Amino acid sequence: MSLLVNDEWKIIQEGFSAEENRLFESLMSSGNGRMGLRGNHEEDYSGDTLKGTYVAGVYYPDKTRVGWWKNGYPEYFAKVLNAIDFIGIRVFVNGEAVDLASSRFTGYRRELDMKESVLRRHFIFIGTDGAEYEINTERFISYADPDLAVIKYSIKSLSRDADITLIPFLNGDVKNEDANYNEKFWDYVNSGAAKDASYVTMRTRKTNFTVSAAFNWKILGAQVQETYPVNERDGEYVGVKINTRITKGSEVTLEKYVAVMSDRYYESKGIENLALQKAQKALETGYEKLYEDNKAKWSDIWRMADITISGDVPAQQGIRFNIYHLNCTYSGDDPRLNIGPKGFTGEKYGGSTYWDTEAYCLYFYLGTQQPEIARSLLVYRHNHLEKAKENSQKLGTRGALYPMVTMNGEECHNEWEITFEEIHRNCAITYAIKNYTDYTGDESYLVTKGIDVLVETSRYWVSRANYNPRKNVTMILGVTGPNEYENNVNNNWYTNRMVKWSLQYTADVLAMMKTKYPERYQEAVERLGITAEEVESFERISRTMYLPEDKELGIFLQQDGYLDKEQVLVSELPPEDLPLNKNWSWDRILRSCFIKQADVLQGLWFLNDEFTLEEKARNFDFYEPRTVHESSLSPCVYSIIAAEIGREDKAYELYLRTARLDLDNYNKDTDDGLHITSMAGTWMSIVHGFGGMRIKNGELSLAPFKPAAWKNYSFRLVYRGRFLKVSVDEQGTTVLLEDGQPIEILLFGQKVMLEKGKAVKQS
Amino acid sequence: MSLLVNDEWKIIQEGFSAEENRLFESLMSSGNGRMGLRGNHEEDYSGDTLKGTYVAGVYYPDKTRVGWWKNGYPEYFAKVLNAIDFIGIRVFVNGEAVDLASSRFTGYRRELDMKESVLRRHFIFIGTDGAEYEINTERFISYADPDLAVIKYSIKSLSRDADITLIPFLNGDVKNEDANYNEKFWDYVNSGAAKDASYVTMRTRKTNFTVSAAFNWKILGAQVQETYPVNERDGEYVGVKINTRITKGSEVTLEKYVAVMSDRYYESKGIENLALQKAQKALETGYEKLYEDNKAKWSDIWRMADITISGDVPAQQGIRFNIYHLNCTYSGDDPRLNIGPKGFTGEKYGGSTYWDTEAYCLYFYLGTQQPEIARSLLVYRHNHLEKAKENSQKLGTRGALYPMVTMNGEECHNEWEITFEEIHRNCAITYAIKNYTDYTGDESYLVTKGIDVLVETSRYWVSRANYNPRKNVTMILGVTGPNEYENNVNNNWYTNRMVKWSLQYTADVLAMMKTKYPERYQEAVERLGITAEEVESFERISRTMYLPEDKELGIFLQQDGYLDKEQVLVSELPPEDLPLNKNWSWDRILRSCFIKQADVLQGLWFLNDEFTLEEKARNFDFYEPRTVHESSLSPCVYSIIAAEIGREDKAYELYLRTARLDLDNYNKDTDDGLHITSMAGTWMSIVHGFGGMRIKNGELSLAPFKPAAWKNYSFRLVYRGRFLKVSVDEQGTTVLLEDGQPIEILLFGQKVMLEKGKAVKQS
Repeated sequence: MSLLVNDEWKIIQEGFSAEENRLFESLMSSGNGRMGLRGNHEEDYSGDTLKGTYVAGVYYPDKTRVGWWKNGYPEYFAKVLNAIDFIGIRVFVNGEAVDLASSRFTGYRRELDMKESVLRRHFIFIGTDGAEYEINTERFISYADPDLAVIKYSIKSLSRDADITLIPFLNGDVKNEDANYNEKFWDYVNSGAAKDASYVTMRTRKTNFTVSAAFNWKILGAQVQETYPVNERDGEYVGVKINTRITKGSEVTLEKYVAVMSDRYYESKGIENLALQKAQKALETGYEKLYEDNKAKWSDIWRMADITISGDVPAQQGIRFNIYHLNCTYSGDDPRLNIGPKGFTGEKYGGSTYWDTEAYCLYFYLGTQQPEIARSLLVYRHNHLEKAKENSQKLGTRGALYPMVTMNGEECHNEWEITFEEIHRNCAITYAIKNYTDYTGDESYLVTKGIDVLVETSRYWVSRANYNPRKNVTMILGVTGPNEYENNVNNNWYTNRMVKWSLQYTADVLAMMKTKYPERYQEAVERLGITAEEVESFERISRTMYLPEDKELGIFLQQDGYLDKEQVLVSELPPEDLPLNKNWSWDRILRSCFIKQADVLQGLWFLNDEFTLEEKARNFDFYEPRTVHESSLSPCVYSIIAAEIGREDKAYELYLRTARLDLDNYNKDTDDGLHITSMAGTWMSIVHGFGGMRIKNGELSLAPFKPAAWKNYSFRLVYRGRFLKVSVDEQGTTVLLEDGQPIEILLFGQKVMLEKGKAVKQS
Repeated sequence: MSLLVNDEWKIIQEGFSAEENRLFESLMSSGNGRMGLRGNHEEDYSGDTLKGTYVAGVYYPDKTRVGWWKNGYPEYFAKVLNAIDFIGIRVFVNGEAVDLASSRFTGYRRELDMKESVLRRHFIFIGTDGAEYEINTERFISYADPDLAVIKYSIKSLSRDADITLIPFLNGDVKNEDANYNEKFWDYVNSGAAKDASYVTMRTRKTNFTVSAAFNWKILGAQVQETYPVNERDGEYVGVKINTRITKGSEVTLEKYVAVMSDRYYESKGIENLALQKAQKALETGYEKLYEDNKAKWSDIWRMADITISGDVPAQQGIRFNIYHLNCTYSGDDPRLNIGPKGFTGEKYGGSTYWDTEAYCLYFYLGTQQPEIARSLLVYRHNHLEKAKENSQKLGTRGALYPMVTMNGEECHNEWEITFEEIHRNCAITYAIKNYTDYTGDESYLVTKGIDVLVETSRYWVSRANYNPRKNVTMILGVTGPNEYENNVNNNWYTNRMVKWSLQYTADVLAMMKTKYPERYQEAVERLGITAEEVESFERISRTMYLPEDKELGIFLQQDGYLDKEQVLVSELPPEDLPLNKNWSWDRILRSCFIKQADVLQGLWFLNDEFTLEEKARNFDFYEPRTVHESSLSPCVYSIIAAEIGREDKAYELYLRTARLDLDNYNKDTDDGLHITSMAGTWMSIVHGFGGMRIKNGELSLAPFKPAAWKNYSFRLVYRGRFLKVSVDEQGTTVLLEDGQPIEILLFGQKVMLEKGKAVKQS
């Protein structure tokens, strides 16, 4: 990928390649948590492109496609929707369309400035007469006003006087590439095209989400000669045709002020008027001010979340890329939203929420944002509790089973070995409650909402586990653990261990509430109908839970039959066999001992305090050589444990496997969109891994080391009302409390008191 | 199902119900092994119908539909094709169309005479003017000439003189209901309509099978007034319009002589001329002679295969129905054909061959036909050996893995837990070689072809099993046994036990060949590249094969984890939970101890000699109460073992579960077509179960008992050139050698000599 230029703050494409257009469209995506866009061209592009405009929370339940139906499968699969294309500007120079798939041009450059969150393009368009025109575009989706996007499109004529026609438009006639039965997902509602402003309103089929987009515009640097409203495709495509003329050496600029509003936030009746008003207001406010507002918001984000790496530009670019996109995807102000695996960068995977949210993303938002943001993710699951109970009932069990993949709380996935069996997802959701509570110190979610999730998931486990009288233990049969390269196994250690923990945690929280929050406790008991016998059953199942282990090897056993498999190490495989998921049959993968992603290790990470360093080391040494890391979510967990047991080089090596996953198109699938959720894992590798960040008995603990390849690095933490900066270099670690009240933390196991503005150094 | 009348030789529908039309279309199906038809009406029927005309071996590779692709899945799924509709005769009475979905009529009767294999219909059509017309139809597909079908359509005017218009036609414009992407599978080749004869030739897409149908016709009982050729739908629909007039009380009869020919048997170039010639010749031969020829062939079949049951008409009808359809489906003269699960009675399941063929059907054809017929089934698999090797290679293993579902040797199925894991199918195929050889005494297939299948499947097992050094045994992990209500289990006893047997049998056969057929042995060694080390590896793996058992319970263990499951008996289930596959989620089914079909018991049946009666009884007593028999292939095996261990009432009870599966529409799915392969199981229940028929050390052994509900019963056997009749009544068993050389058999364990015409009686 020679076109990508390394830069600390920017993603730069230097030159153009049609083959890599989709890839760079993905890399140049941006968003504000409420909407997002791929890095598509504004002007017509007749070549291969994945047009992508996404509006948060607007989805379509596409009819499920299966080979063989199994009882319990969902009928629908909720998909992220490609929505009204609002960036479009058709451009004609002396009547000739600018279209980079067919036009002559030079000097193409596309760059995403992550610091200010702005996408810029530059190229020289060459007319058929050889005349040259410099084109510069700039656009941003405002983080300051989540319904707003602004585009500036400039054309400078270098060789001659020229007629320039610009047609800013809105196009509601869009489809998803990923549609199971090639259906259209939108119906037309209304639209209007006038000289000053245009709008189009569309409504999703079945789900009836209404989205309206409107724009106003302004021409700078040239006289507008004529304008004509444009209204095509039965009103789904509207805009305005603007004719101007510029002299040689002068430049015309179109500013397009777009408002995009959905009835998730505004009443659907008359929503087009709100959009028109907002677009008009934006025009009045003007480009500079809107630009500064957006920049200021991003400045706040970076102040809390930035990681600096010195001595390694690609690493610096990589981690900022991740931090940037995590913030584009989720701003945390709406608990109905979550973090889709592709965010606003593609359609793939549909749904919006996997257990990735709780297992990976939550750490990032906890560490880099105010607690409300992370709390919204927890509230999301609490809001879906009734659906999770229905889901469990559908499978013939009690309590709540959260879906594997969801948009609105309903299960979307249809592979029995995943949908019905990868049930450990419930534990990530309960663990997130503990994680949030421990990090923030805020128990209010736990005692008002979290307890419901804890009790209902515990009820599920009671009905899903079975007591085995022959062995006098409780077992969980027929599961798929985090390692999806084994399916339908018995007694997956991770699942059993997390269930054991989750049941006991539920009982412990109830006991804590009884003494500390007696009113909340009483409310919960009544609301949930909890009895003492039931709590006792939680504790009994927790106590009798079977945990497979191999005493001889001193390891926890991934599942009952794991050691019956032929034992081979990844290093013994012919390199051409990797990745296994491309080169081996599913049969062979399933029967092999090779591990897709952290499984036992995931448990060692979540329940980090409950295992000795020796246990971690033995399990790491056994499982790591058998792990192929064919999930982008895998290496970060191994990296953190490697760091913890003192394998610093290994920790760094593992970190590298996902640090630039998308930028280097490591899995050759970034064309489809970015791997948003795994980005949080890279952040974790640095902060929890290299930085050794933990919460130990309610105290923030740090124990950083510096990877040899880096000169120095720093990361920020938002922790209980404080802003901290942790810097690590050859000399050691410096912790600076940038803002907030004094606080005691653990640094390399020693208590140190931090006070605002006073750096504490330890080597 | 009130419309079905019990009769010893006929399937009779008395009265008409549109709701049950598809059901009776299935029940009234017929065929001759080369083609087959559902019991569709000849005249127009605008109501709900599943039109079905099927030509043996003509299939279409429909593009696979999956939810989630797994490496190793096949791209295509070969489907039985609905072919040219050749029975059609449109009928107009005084210009009014006869259409039982819209016309008035009374006295409807449809009957399939199984003895002569002829389908008859009768009804009184009532015109809008109230005039009545008696309509009688009769048709058969000739067993004497496999390309021929004949239809006789008579109309008698009861009330008035009438104009009768008959349009016999051929319609090539047909589709499959079961098409994954709603595609048409046929292209038009040519057609012609003339006054005397018409034809249409169609070709399948992708597979390029050519099928041509032609017909001649004759009118009896009335003058033909005018005829017009009919040519519609771009030539795909051709025929002739025949106007006649009859007086009150007289009858007009149309005879339609149809030839249906495919390029599986005739050269495709000019095939329409062959069809036209055959239709012309049939017309010349005439209805009566063709009828007698067909009847005579069926008389031969019944002489070899009939079972009589006295004192139980439904049972008599049920078993003849099964024997009839097994013969309609497979005539054994073409080793490229096999026994589809729906035969020529519906589209469902696609493919043509499952392990049902070897595990169930083979017994039936061995017992009721000359050995060549059963041998063809073995040759079919030998012909597919190269494809089975490719299939294995695709999965990353060596040797041959036969497909789960196939038409031409390629795998068609796409559920990983079945396609990749239900690998015990290989053993049914090797076991069939032993079964055939033991029953017929013919070793020629074994030593020339069978040995290749044995060696290549053994090679598969060598690469699929894994030696477990920790336990010093060989294991087979990640399989689905015959009980498809457990998937991806380790060490399924049935699979391991059959593999153990199969590997040793391969070694034994090689050793036998070395001494008894040294030339064949040498050829095989060279052809297959067998080494002594390899044979030793077969024996070693056989010897070290792990066979899970529970010593305490004294049972073989269905799979490693079976006893870890919650143990519940079927009798403890709420009746409304049954059948589980309709009422439980797949998750719940998989985790339960409930067994869909014979698994351990299947092994006890196949390797019947190798287990003691006590072992059989203990395993029966343990597994039978846990078996829900939700496969129609299950009860027969349990019934046979129940009979063997002296549980006669249980054996009869289990026999009843499938004896009239389709006639009583037990699973509410006979609309889609009949359950052909399970029909063989019912035959087995009687002959192997009640009759106790075995081959013991190369000798035929019988030990019949009589179910209490029956007065007496008899069955026929074709055995090594003899025709035997075994009759059982209150007084005991009578064995009569009806034809062939004297032979010694075992009757209740005693040697008796049979001589032609001399009944041997034992009580």
